[in-house]
Order: sequence, then C-alpha cells, then structure tokens
Amino acid sequence: MSIFLNEFIATAILILLGNGVVANVVLNKTKGQNSGWIVITFGWAIAVFVAVYIAAKGDSGAHLNPAITIAFAAMKKISWDVVPYYVAGQLLGAMAGALVVWLSYMKHFDATPDGDAKQAVFCTAPAIRSNTANLLTEIIGTFVLVFGALYITGPTSSLGSLDALPVALLVLGIGLSLGGPTGYAINPARDLGPRIMHAILPLKQKGSNGWGYSWVPIAGPVIGALIAALVFGAVNG
Amino acid sequence: MSIFLNEFIATAILILLGNGVVANVVLNKTKGQNSGWIVITFGWAIAVFVAVYIAAKGDSGAHLNPAITIAFAAMKKISWDVVPYYVAGQLLGAMAGALVVWLSYMKHFDATPDGDAKQAVFCTAPAIRSNTANLLTEIIGTFVLVFGALYITGPTSSLGSLDALPVALLVLGIGLSLGGPTGYAINPARDLGPRIMHAILPLKQKGSNGWGYSWVPIAGPVIGALIAALVFGAVNG
Amino acid sequence: MSIFLNEFIATAILILLGNGVVANVVLNKTKGQNSGWIVITFGWAIAVFVAVYIAAKGDSGAHLNPAITIAFAAMKKISWDVVPYYVAGQLLGAMAGALVVWLSYMKHFDATPDGDAKQAVFCTAPAIRSNTANLLTEIIGTFVLVFGALYITGPTSSLGSLDALPVALLVLGIGLSLGGPTGYAINPARDLGPRIMHAILPLKQKGSNGWGYSWVPIAGPVIGALIAALVFGAVNG
Amino acid sequence: MSIFLNEFIATAILILLGNGVVANVVLNKTKGQNSGWIVITFGWAIAVFVAVYIAAKGDSGAHLNPAITIAFAAMKKISWDVVPYYVAGQLLGAMAGALVVWLSYMKHFDATPDGDAKQAVFCTAPAIRSNTANLLTEIIGTFVLVFGALYITGPTSSLGSLDALPVALLVLGIGLSLGGPTGYAINPARDLGPRIMHAILPLKQKGSNGWGYSWVPIAGPVIGALIAALVFGAVNG
Repeated sequence: MSIFLNEFIATAILILLGNGVVANVVLNKTKGQNSGWIVITFGWAIAVFVAVYIAAKGDSGAHLNPAITIAFAAMKKISWDVVPYYVAGQLLGAMAGALVVWLSYMKHFDATPDGDAKQAVFCTAPAIRSNTANLLTEIIGTFVLVFGALYITGPTSSLGSLDALPVALLVLGIGLSLGGPTGYAINPARDLGPRIMHAILPLKQKGSNGWGYSWVPIAGPVIGALIAALVFGAVNG
Repeated sequence: MSIFLNEFIATAILILLGNGVVANVVLNKTKGQNSGWIVITFGWAIAVFVAVYIAAKGDSGAHLNPAITIAFAAMKKISWDVVPYYVAGQLLGAMAGALVVWLSYMKHFDATPDGDAKQAVFCTAPAIRSNTANLLTEIIGTFVLVFGALYITGPTSSLGSLDALPVALLVLGIGLSLGGPTGYAINPARDLGPRIMHAILPLKQKGSNGWGYSWVPIAGPVIGALIAALVFGAVNG
Repeated sequence: MSIFLNEFIATAILILLGNGVVANVVLNKTKGQNSGWIVITFGWAIAVFVAVYIAAKGDSGAHLNPAITIAFAAMKKISWDVVPYYVAGQLLGAMAGALVVWLSYMKHFDATPDGDAKQAVFCTAPAIRSNTANLLTEIIGTFVLVFGALYITGPTSSLGSLDALPVALLVLGIGLSLGGPTGYAINPARDLGPRIMHAILPLKQKGSNGWGYSWVPIAGPVIGALIAALVFGAVNG
Repeated sequence: MSIFLNEFIATAILILLGNGVVANVVLNKTKGQNSGWIVITFGWAIAVFVAVYIAAKGDSGAHLNPAITIAFAAMKKISWDVVPYYVAGQLLGAMAGALVVWLSYMKHFDATPDGDAKQAVFCTAPAIRSNTANLLTEIIGTFVLVFGALYITGPTSSLGSLDALPVALLVLGIGLSLGGPTGYAINPARDLGPRIMHAILPLKQKGSNGWGYSWVPIAGPVIGALIAALVFGAVNG
C-alpha cells in the first residue's frame, strides 16, 4: 500500500506542476502565455525536483515513471510482484494531477478555442508526425533518462532527497535537447493518464484525444528504458 | 521580540526582491522591461532563497508567510501564542519591502502612466476575474507550497540555511506552473502588505487598489495551507 | 602580495565573464544579440560564481568588490592596512578583465556603430538619469548584497568555495529585481575599472565615457555597504 | 580500455545533449525553435553536468575534452601514454553523439532547407569570420574553462560527481559571456567529431562542411588550455 500511495501522491504533484506549466504557456490570457521553451523545460524540471523530493521520504524509491519501474524490475532491483502497485499509483496519480491542472486553469481552458492547445496541456503530440521517427526520439530520450538515473541511484533501486536535483537537471537537459520533435513524454504514465482525463473531462470545444499516437509515448519509453538497463549492465556489470 | 524582528527583516527582503522583479518587468524604461515570465519567476524564487537564508540564521524558523505560520500552529508545531508576532512581522515587513521597491524604482513609476501596471508591482490581480476559480487556484498553489515545505522541514517547525534552495525551487515551480491565472500570491502578507502601501503611497495616476479582490489572496492561501496540513498529517501521521 | 594577486585574478575573471555577457547581448552580430535580461543576469551571476570559487582557494577571502572590503574593514573584520592591496587588485583586475572582453569581441565592437551600446559593455549608465534616484537605487542594491554576504560569511571575513553558489544567487536576485534603473553596478571597481579602459582603448566611433555619472556607482555602493554593516551589527550584534 | 570506454560514453552523451539543444533551436518545426541563447547555453551546461556525472563514476577522470587531457598531460597530472586513449574516446564519442542527434531530429533536418542551420547543429562557425579574432576568442574561452577546471579538480587530475555542477556552471558562464563570436567550441573533439559526421551523413541539401574554419576550434582550445596550465602553475605553484 505505501508504494502505491507514495507513487500516487508524488506522480500527482509531478503532473500538476508539469502539465501546469504547459497550461500556463499555451492557454489564452494566462500570465505566462507564450513564455517559451525555457519556461516549459524549467517547469518540468522543477516538477521532477519537487515530486522526487517528496517521494524520497516514502518507501517506493521515487520512480514516478513505469519505464523506470520496469527497467528496475528487469535488472532485478525490485520484484516484478510490486510492479503493478507502482504502475497503478503512477497512472492514477497522473490522472489526478491532470484533473487538478484543469481545476487550476478552468477559465483559461474556456478562453482557449484551439483544441490542439487544450490537448497539449494533457498529453504529448509530435511536431512532425512519423511513427518511426517519433518512436525513435522517445526511445533515445528515455534511454538518456534511465541510463543517467542508474548512475544517480547507484546500486540501490531508490532515489533519495539528495538525488532530486541531479534527476531534475537530467530531465531539464532531456527537455532542452531532445524534446523538440515529440515533447519528451519519456514516461508512459505522464502521457496516458492525462490523455484519459482529456477524453473524460467536459472541456468545451474539445479536440482530438490523439489515440492514434498514444502508443508511441508508451512503447518508446519502455523500449528506451530496457535498452538503458542492458547497456548500463554491459558497461558497469 | 526576536521572532517579530527576524520575520520583519526577512519578509522585507522577500518583498523587496520579489516585488522588485515585477517592477523591473512591468514598469516603463527599465533595463528589464518586458523580459517575461522566466524573469518574474526566477526573481521571486531567488527572493525566497535570500530571505530564507537570512531568516534561517535567526530564531523564527523562516516562515515569512502567515499561511505557513497558521499551518504550523494548526499542526501544533508552534504555539498559537506566538502567531501574532509572526504575522505582525510578516505584514509590516512586507509593507517595508514594498516601500523600498517604490524608492528603488521611483522614476519608473513616474514614467508609467498605466495604473494597472503600477498596481501589479504591489499586489496580485487575476488574469481572468472569477472569485471561485481564482480562490481555487490560490488554494491549490498554497497547498503545493505548504505540502512541499512540510517535507522540507521534516518534524521540525523551522527552515534552515540548507533548506533555502529547495524552498526556492518549490516556489519557482509554483510560479512557473500554477502562477498563470492569479499571479501566485500564495502568501497573505505578500499581497496585503504591499496593497496597503499601494493605497498609502503618493503614486501619480494611481489605479485601483483592488480591494474587491483582496480577500482572495488571503483566504485562498490560508485554506490551502490548512488542507496541506491535514493531508500531510493523514499521509505521514 | 597574495591578497593583491588573488583579488586581481579573480576580479579579472569576474569582469571578463560579467562584461562579456553584456557584449554578447548588446553588440551587433553576436550569437547572443538581444537575448535579454535573463541572459545578462545569469551571465553576471555565473561570473560571480566562478570568480568567488577561484578566489576562495587563495588568501584574500574573495571580496572582489571595494564596497565589501570597506564594509569588512569598518566592522574590524580586516585591518584598514590591507584595504589598499584589496582595492588595487580589484581595480586593476577589473581593468584587465575589460581589456580581455574587448579582445574577445573585437570584430563585434567594430560592427556596432552605437557608442552607447559599446559603452554599456564597459560600465553602467542609468535608464532614467537622476542623481538622487540613481544613487538611492545603487545604495539599496549594495545594501542587499553586503547584508546578504554578511549572513553568508558568518563571523569570518571570507567567502569559501561553498559560498560561491549562495553569493551568485544573491547577485542574480539583485540583478533581476533591483537592476532595472541603473544596471546594478553595486561594486565601484566593476564600474570604474572598465570605464577607465573605455576611455583608454582605441574603440572606433567611441561615445561618451560617462564621467558625469561615474561617481554614482562608486558612492552608492560604498554608502550601501556601510549601512549594511551598521544594520547587520545592530541586528546581530 | 576503461579510459577509452568511459570517455567514449560520456562524450557521446555530452554531444547528444549539447548538439541536441542546437537542433531544437535552429531546425524548423521543432517545439523549441528560435527559443534563443538562454536555451542553447543551458542545454550545453546540462549536457556537461550529465556527462561529467556519468564519467565521474568511471576511471578516466571525466575530461571529455582533448584540451583538458593535453593540459593535464602537460602538467604531468597524467602520463602522455594514455593521451591517445582519451582523445580517441572523446573524438569517437563525439561522432557517435552527433549521429544520435541526427537520428533524434531526422524529420526536422529534412524540414530545414538552410544548409548553414543544419551545419550549426554539428559544429561551430564564427559570427564574423576572422581567423585571428576567432582564434583569440577560442583561446580565451578555453583558458577560462581549463583555468577554472584546475581550481575545481584541485591537486587531482579527476572530476568527481560533486564537481559536475561547478563545471556545468563554468561552461554556462563561458557560453553566456564568451560564446557570442564563435559559438564556444572550447573542445576540439566537440567540434571535429560532429564535423566529420556532417561530412559523412546523407543530409539532404547539405551545406559546406566548413573545413576552412575547422582548425580554429582545434588550435584555439589547445593553445588556451596550455596557457591556462602555465598560468595556473605560475600562480599556484
């Protein structure tokens, strides 16, 4: 239970602050409207910092990302038995976070007729649509995330409070440098949970849910994480 | 006395640097005019860093925010008897800080005919006016502040020097991600103290003091802080 | 001798990186042209970080600023006898740093006909000219610098390696929040040394040296530093 | 072998994130297009942070730059015998990193007709062409890098995990302040490796490889690094 609750709470905070910064930049009439990529990437980095800092006080090891959880299981750092608790906490936490973003920016959703902008607050969409290229970009971005995270956790399977800053800087770098083509989902829960909320919530003038693309930010991160586990094991084994 | 003085000095520095960055961005003919949301949010984050760093050397625990003080009292981390000393120091400190911002930017206030811009240097105003939505946004933002701060202070009721950076990053994240609708007061003293100064100071072409909105950035932060205390207690109790 | 040399080297690095970022933003055809106040303020903050980090390995305590040296002497943290070595190192270091900025950006000085832009690379000029208001702004900015630095150094008279980041963030905050009216000299050597180099160097289409304003960024920082020493003593004595 | 492999992996990560941020800013239709110098310089800084953090867990000391390796050899911190392993790892790692950037942004290279923009993703080009001035700027920038790095490593020849942040901030400062004229190669492998990949890869509408300029970002960094070693030895010997 404590794994589920810890991942739920911290992933909700992650998505509240992460999707929140997108709302601030892309919705109409906000104070941060059109404030650019530096705001988006710092917003997500600090979201990771706060979420890892909070999760690190609990017992789950602060994964906040099914791709990390699966990589750790594949490396036998955690048992496959607990993976469902992690993933359920992460996915439901991401849905809860997206709900609170909607509550925070409700009037600005109403003031934004563009359905694609509203969808962007919830989940990723590629800048240029190409299943192969988009999948490859998500694989590469998540490879860097998990490969770097494995150096940060060291032999343990946990991120601690003092790891919150290095992990946040790692995600800042991935966003700045590899986020251009697909908006760096690099986390299946971060993308799928809010996408489900986008489908459910009573948004006015709602656009597409983007289900046709939705497998890419799930498959890419999982593949990238597994490759990172393999390469890390080969290099440091 | 040392609680009052410590909170007074540090909150004055907080508002000097926090409201100062707004002056730089919104007033006419400054070197930072129109430099955007990234400057606003980093300015406030560093204001928190410097103020907490300074206050942490004293005996008050570096609250700098009546919402935090009230949450700590509600959690029995501090006695209700000392709350008035805290709040008085915070409110008067915020007024003093706002006065020094006015002294620092005096010629630029004169060069700015727009009354709303001048008011924005002192206190918050919503991007889209809606009592319910604005209140909810302030509740959510302050919830994140106090919930996060409770993880940072741990079982104590104090922020120390080494907590200055995590708290500053937390406030950076709230600004980037949740500041879009209301300008993230998340602190009753930060809003009310400077609003009083706006009413008092002999500004040329003064606009509205915004008294009709002034209860939102008081009630919202207090409610959000109390909810954070409750949730934190339920999760970690 | 080691005080002089240490202050000389580190102040040269401070001005090389500090004035360098101004060159990048204001001169024509650079890769950072018009990149704004966030670039200016981060550039100066990192200049402080690198310079303090380097100076902290030596014996001078990493003042890099005559206003700090004078405040420390007034507080009897250092002897008045060594003040001339400090100030000479700081002033000559600042001149050397400005020279290297000119060498680094030589072709871009040639490509910039605007004399005021070229002067801005060397020394500060107010956004709105007013001796009283400009002096007051420099007093306030330097007050925050020295008041904050006294909390960072604690009872010693020295900044160490681990103080480089807090001091850099302090200067970042002063720039973001109080730099709007005068460009935050907050350091007599930072302003006078490069101003002398501007007068000496064979710049094409040179503008005014701004001697009429040059006393403000000397007197303001010294006054602000002495007030900070007094207030700090009164509060913490 | 472990020196080669360690430098190879970490330099590949350095270039993946470093050149990646340039791709995001200069190529067409990315989410970070035209997001400016603050994004470029933070992207490179975090690239250095991540690469040094990873390399510091291995045995090579995290040089990631032939100019640093050569300076350390000249100072007898490492043997000249191992220099070829370092440089080979760095150069091949840089080529590998550039290849992965191309894979990550493939559709955006196709969507960018401007050959100079595509070349800028791989290697540096001066803002104003002048062999003397450009060489001097690269010498000065690398001098600051190596002079600063020698204070960070102290008497050892290695960067550790805790040095990753100071080195990243040092590179941030060099980019912000001295990157304007030449784009701060300050690392022969960073420039030559990706330039070779630019010549090899089947880019559509490819522009010049810039071989006529390619010696500057090799010679400048080596000269600057050796001067830094000399000056550091003279000052601290």
